[in-house]
Amino acid sequence: MSSQADSHSSASSSTAPAEPKSVPKPRDQHLRDLADCIRFLSMDAVQQAKSGHPGAPMGMADIATVLYKDFMQFDAADPHWFDRDRFLLSNGHGSMLLYSLLYLTGSHDMTIDELKRFRQIDSKTAGHPEYKHADGIETTTGPLGQGIANSVGFALSERILNAKFGDDLCKHWTYVFLGDGCLMEGISQEAISMAGHFKLGHLIAFWDNNSISIDGATSLSVSDNEVERFRASGWHVQEIDGHDTDAIRDAIHAARAVTDKPSMIACKTIIGFGFPTKAGTQKAHSDAPGEEEIAGARKILGWDYPPFVIPEHLLSAWREIGSKGRAARLAWADRVKAAPTELRTEFERRNNGELPADWKKAISAARAEFIASGKEMATRSASGAVLDHLAAAIPELLGGSADLTPSNNTRAKGMVEIRPGEYLGTYMHYGVREHGMAAAMNGIALHGGLIPYGGTFMCFSDYCRPSIRLAALMRIRTIFVMTHDSIGLGEDGPTHQPVEQLAALRAIPDLAVFRPGDPVETAECWELILEAPRRAALIALSRQPMPLLRREPGDENRSARGAYVLLEAEGGERKLTIIGTGSELHLAVQAREILQKEGIPTAVVSMPSRLLFEEQDAAYRKTVLGTTRARVAVEAAVELGWERYTGLDGRFVGMHGFGASGKIGDVYKKFDITTEAVVRAARETLAEVG
Amino acid sequence: MSSQADSHSSASSSTAPAEPKSVPKPRDQHLRDLADCIRFLSMDAVQQAKSGHPGAPMGMADIATVLYKDFMQFDAADPHWFDRDRFLLSNGHGSMLLYSLLYLTGSHDMTIDELKRFRQIDSKTAGHPEYKHADGIETTTGPLGQGIANSVGFALSERILNAKFGDDLCKHWTYVFLGDGCLMEGISQEAISMAGHFKLGHLIAFWDNNSISIDGATSLSVSDNEVERFRASGWHVQEIDGHDTDAIRDAIHAARAVTDKPSMIACKTIIGFGFPTKAGTQKAHSDAPGEEEIAGARKILGWDYPPFVIPEHLLSAWREIGSKGRAARLAWADRVKAAPTELRTEFERRNNGELPADWKKAISAARAEFIASGKEMATRSASGAVLDHLAAAIPELLGGSADLTPSNNTRAKGMVEIRPGEYLGTYMHYGVREHGMAAAMNGIALHGGLIPYGGTFMCFSDYCRPSIRLAALMRIRTIFVMTHDSIGLGEDGPTHQPVEQLAALRAIPDLAVFRPGDPVETAECWELILEAPRRAALIALSRQPMPLLRREPGDENRSARGAYVLLEAEGGERKLTIIGTGSELHLAVQAREILQKEGIPTAVVSMPSRLLFEEQDAAYRKTVLGTTRARVAVEAAVELGWERYTGLDGRFVGMHGFGASGKIGDVYKKFDITTEAVVRAARETLAEVG
Repeated sequence: MSSQADSHSSASSSTAPAEPKSVPKPRDQHLRDLADCIRFLSMDAVQQAKSGHPGAPMGMADIATVLYKDFMQFDAADPHWFDRDRFLLSNGHGSMLLYSLLYLTGSHDMTIDELKRFRQIDSKTAGHPEYKHADGIETTTGPLGQGIANSVGFALSERILNAKFGDDLCKHWTYVFLGDGCLMEGISQEAISMAGHFKLGHLIAFWDNNSISIDGATSLSVSDNEVERFRASGWHVQEIDGHDTDAIRDAIHAARAVTDKPSMIACKTIIGFGFPTKAGTQKAHSDAPGEEEIAGARKILGWDYPPFVIPEHLLSAWREIGSKGRAARLAWADRVKAAPTELRTEFERRNNGELPADWKKAISAARAEFIASGKEMATRSASGAVLDHLAAAIPELLGGSADLTPSNNTRAKGMVEIRPGEYLGTYMHYGVREHGMAAAMNGIALHGGLIPYGGTFMCFSDYCRPSIRLAALMRIRTIFVMTHDSIGLGEDGPTHQPVEQLAALRAIPDLAVFRPGDPVETAECWELILEAPRRAALIALSRQPMPLLRREPGDENRSARGAYVLLEAEGGERKLTIIGTGSELHLAVQAREILQKEGIPTAVVSMPSRLLFEEQDAAYRKTVLGTTRARVAVEAAVELGWERYTGLDGRFVGMHGFGASGKIGDVYKKFDITTEAVVRAARETLAEVG
Repeated sequence: MSSQADSHSSASSSTAPAEPKSVPKPRDQHLRDLADCIRFLSMDAVQQAKSGHPGAPMGMADIATVLYKDFMQFDAADPHWFDRDRFLLSNGHGSMLLYSLLYLTGSHDMTIDELKRFRQIDSKTAGHPEYKHADGIETTTGPLGQGIANSVGFALSERILNAKFGDDLCKHWTYVFLGDGCLMEGISQEAISMAGHFKLGHLIAFWDNNSISIDGATSLSVSDNEVERFRASGWHVQEIDGHDTDAIRDAIHAARAVTDKPSMIACKTIIGFGFPTKAGTQKAHSDAPGEEEIAGARKILGWDYPPFVIPEHLLSAWREIGSKGRAARLAWADRVKAAPTELRTEFERRNNGELPADWKKAISAARAEFIASGKEMATRSASGAVLDHLAAAIPELLGGSADLTPSNNTRAKGMVEIRPGEYLGTYMHYGVREHGMAAAMNGIALHGGLIPYGGTFMCFSDYCRPSIRLAALMRIRTIFVMTHDSIGLGEDGPTHQPVEQLAALRAIPDLAVFRPGDPVETAECWELILEAPRRAALIALSRQPMPLLRREPGDENRSARGAYVLLEAEGGERKLTIIGTGSELHLAVQAREILQKEGIPTAVVSMPSRLLFEEQDAAYRKTVLGTTRARVAVEAAVELGWERYTGLDGRFVGMHGFGASGKIGDVYKKFDITTEAVVRAARETLAEVG
């Protein structure tokens, strides 16, 4: 390692580019050759695409080779094998490392042609690994730090399911590669802290310690002692030369021997290992290296094959790596078959992503309770009551909160908390780590076997927005519970009052944002969230009580089409449509009453989910919104996006700036979000439309 | 300390609430009495408001007392004294600590009546400290971790201005209080890492180590060794009993003696110190304590005064603390007067927030260059060129990037980089720390004397959104430079392609989002950003080149009203309005050409800033948008918000989901954002409007 480190540091401090860089003699030429398969596929693909990041794949090729050859338990023939080890690439820009591994190990849908189409439109080989583009891509990475935080969710899921189903059915490892950039992102600290606290012993992280970032040497901006930082969070840490295959193997063995701590292996590497002039510099990080540089690498590494050609003996060695897990997989399948029926059925049901047959009874029960009580209720409380029923019906629900459990009402009756080393539970105290929580939940949703939901204040959806976005992009069932969803939280003031978050979240494609307007709608929204396994969802809930507006019997889910006519106009053709959501829906109802008395046929539309409404056909949407252009929308949030329904002639009653600290009544009055304001707006639009 | 720690841990592990908790005998009764002023004002205010957080003010009162009495250099009579020490409360929910200090030290606008109106509408004493609500509130805090990250900006500014103007004019300290929640947030790591790297020796942080968070004991979710974590980032760290006034004083002396490292003092405290039953538990954290609990505290602490009454001898002792800095302030004013004219003038100009008299020549010069060249150019490159001129004209510009300097074009010609211990520069390598960068920039803007701008990819505005929001809320001139602002970045794919960020950022109240459509507009937007000292701004810039669309001579800033008619309809009354921004503006221009040839009088409106446009009067807006309802908007982003201009009859050409990895031309084609698509949309809306 020391000679490696020396040659590296002298390389990066040197300014003379003339002398081509040599590489250290390998410990094991065969392993070097296997690693060079990754290196040249990465170089060739980036060169062909004229874009991409060759540096990290070349730097981490030796680590990946040892990991896959001697440790990774998987079978390329069945990439969905539930008990496989998981491999995550947190430094997702090094995507060619992953694509190369998938091709080399024989993944069915990663062909050499796909590698040749790296970064081309509609290929499986996008610039960054995209979940579902090809089997074996366990998560979408690229935004730095997300992968390491996902890995916490994977490793946590494994421990929880292990506690529930035993070693025979679930016992595997989560391996994650990460770069300097991942460690500079704050989310990494949340992830590291969480993994250490919960003693996630089946998680092993490999840090690509190459001392290079885009601006230049990492020493321009960072001087953390990462080893001590991980130790401070309870990790087992080792430092090795990332090109010494013996050291890599020994370190992984040592890491696996420590089962009550996550493990970090700091691997000193040379970015762009093998490049004659760019190795060890930021020039190796990204962009096409150029034919000359690749020719130099061929010479230095002794690689005599044309671009995209892997010689038969190396390809078959890699394919062997890809199939070596077959026996273990079959043995596991036998164990599953031999498991007690009840355990096996439950295990298979969960892994197939099927909900228990009669889970909807939980929704019915909650609805019935709300209607029987008839009381006004905060939707956060209604949500808590729904979760009490759901948690009993759906044991794979994994609740949690970012240190706001009593405020978010996320801990259902009977939920046992997960503690360090004690994983037989269904509730997570994620700590004040919204971003880490959200990314870990993504990992949990991706792993399978559990359905994660987690709470914080709506305003702090901003803190975890990058992970919410990725949940939406990946189309996974991560559920974000956001309470205190408007100025209605009162005294905490503008820093805690979301005003723009609803619009900002609705702007995220494919994210189903729900804002129920009463307890019954809250139950309906939870039903819609749970029955959509391929959609990320966020439910916005009030702190303050609101009246029960839905009292009809039966289980028809009226929220299912996103919006519906809560109250139709009476006494003639509809002249006015008032649209409301959440805690302002009852203002629409009250305003309608006044307007109807004045003889204006007025309908109230409840719109708990814009996304679902937009998915309906034009005829339905027209029925709901009506043909009248006299429309008012009311929501205690900014207007952005409401113009879609109010048009150029309608009106909006809501927020036009940040909130204020004060009693809830005072705050609503200050910002003129009242029944009277809705009536006034109605008269204005009616006058305009004529 | 050990007896303290023992009594604390036994208190929190005990479940029997019967025995009222005593408090340790003070080292110094007078200091205890001074601290109790804070405690009782905090208790009384929270009790009166029936809402708030008494625990932290009561726990940190001793620390605050020693800090203010023996160290804080300030003069309540002149809260804007430039060289004052800064005090930040990162755990902003403990706002009553700050409000109490302001009242006690005699700040002109913090009266006892304001304390009585704590958390009431339109008071100065909002739930969380709001910048500008009262003098002495240096920053808005509440969202956890922001204050510690702001403090990095304050401490950095002090060092940079000290390097420039010398000890005589600028040499002070930044003190920041923070809680467990701040340390759990990822942003704290970015801040700690940055402060340690840059050796910010004039920064001292006090950690309120009370082991309690909302869910209960912090041990539920965190077991980091914070002392080792700070050390790993190069901090000087001490651990003390936060109620031992001698220990506090000694620790601050020791921290100030170490000037090449930031300092963290871990203060073991009892949350709600003085409460008979709630002290040391999460019940002390928030909510009104109740009359009985307060009566118990009066007994325990020996406090015989009615609510909101501070006895004269203690008030006058505090007022003395508030005025003890007067001599130092006057001496400083004398030194400023005595400074060399050029230095003094520059110092005063900057501190008054005035730009150099002829700074706009830089804008003119850049415009002229663009027009003379006539070449197509990416707006990120245009922005870089504008910055080259601006940096020469405005020496207080402090550039930076979150490790994307070569991509963001943020480093202007001649900018010298700030390095650890070497502060005579104007460029920051913030590292891959978008959130820490944004919050530090807020601190820099708040400190005064420098104008910060910092870059990252537009997509990663999500990573720093909480700080962008706070910049907007505080109305400070923090400038966010966001390049790679659409699918136009191509191969990096959907994880890096912002599609919803424009809408999400436009949703933030008071944030001026700019998206210039050519190099000249880029110059205009920079002019608008810089001439608005009380407005946060974000400029979205393209990776890809776009044609020069503005070629007219002169310096009229046509972007100043947010939107304007770039090309008026010809050959008759306007029948169609096409609105475009940024890299899609030229598609609007090309589409107009086709439509005009077909005999349809078509105007093109450029809308670089929605916010500025909305501030115009209705007449102007109508002139720009036209009376026709046939309207098309084109922007390579989601539609949300565009309906405001296109109405129910218009059309939108843009994104309807996430992007894709591929060559730029392929990506635009895939998503049908082309001249042809604009023409098609125009025909549709014309047909509809008739």
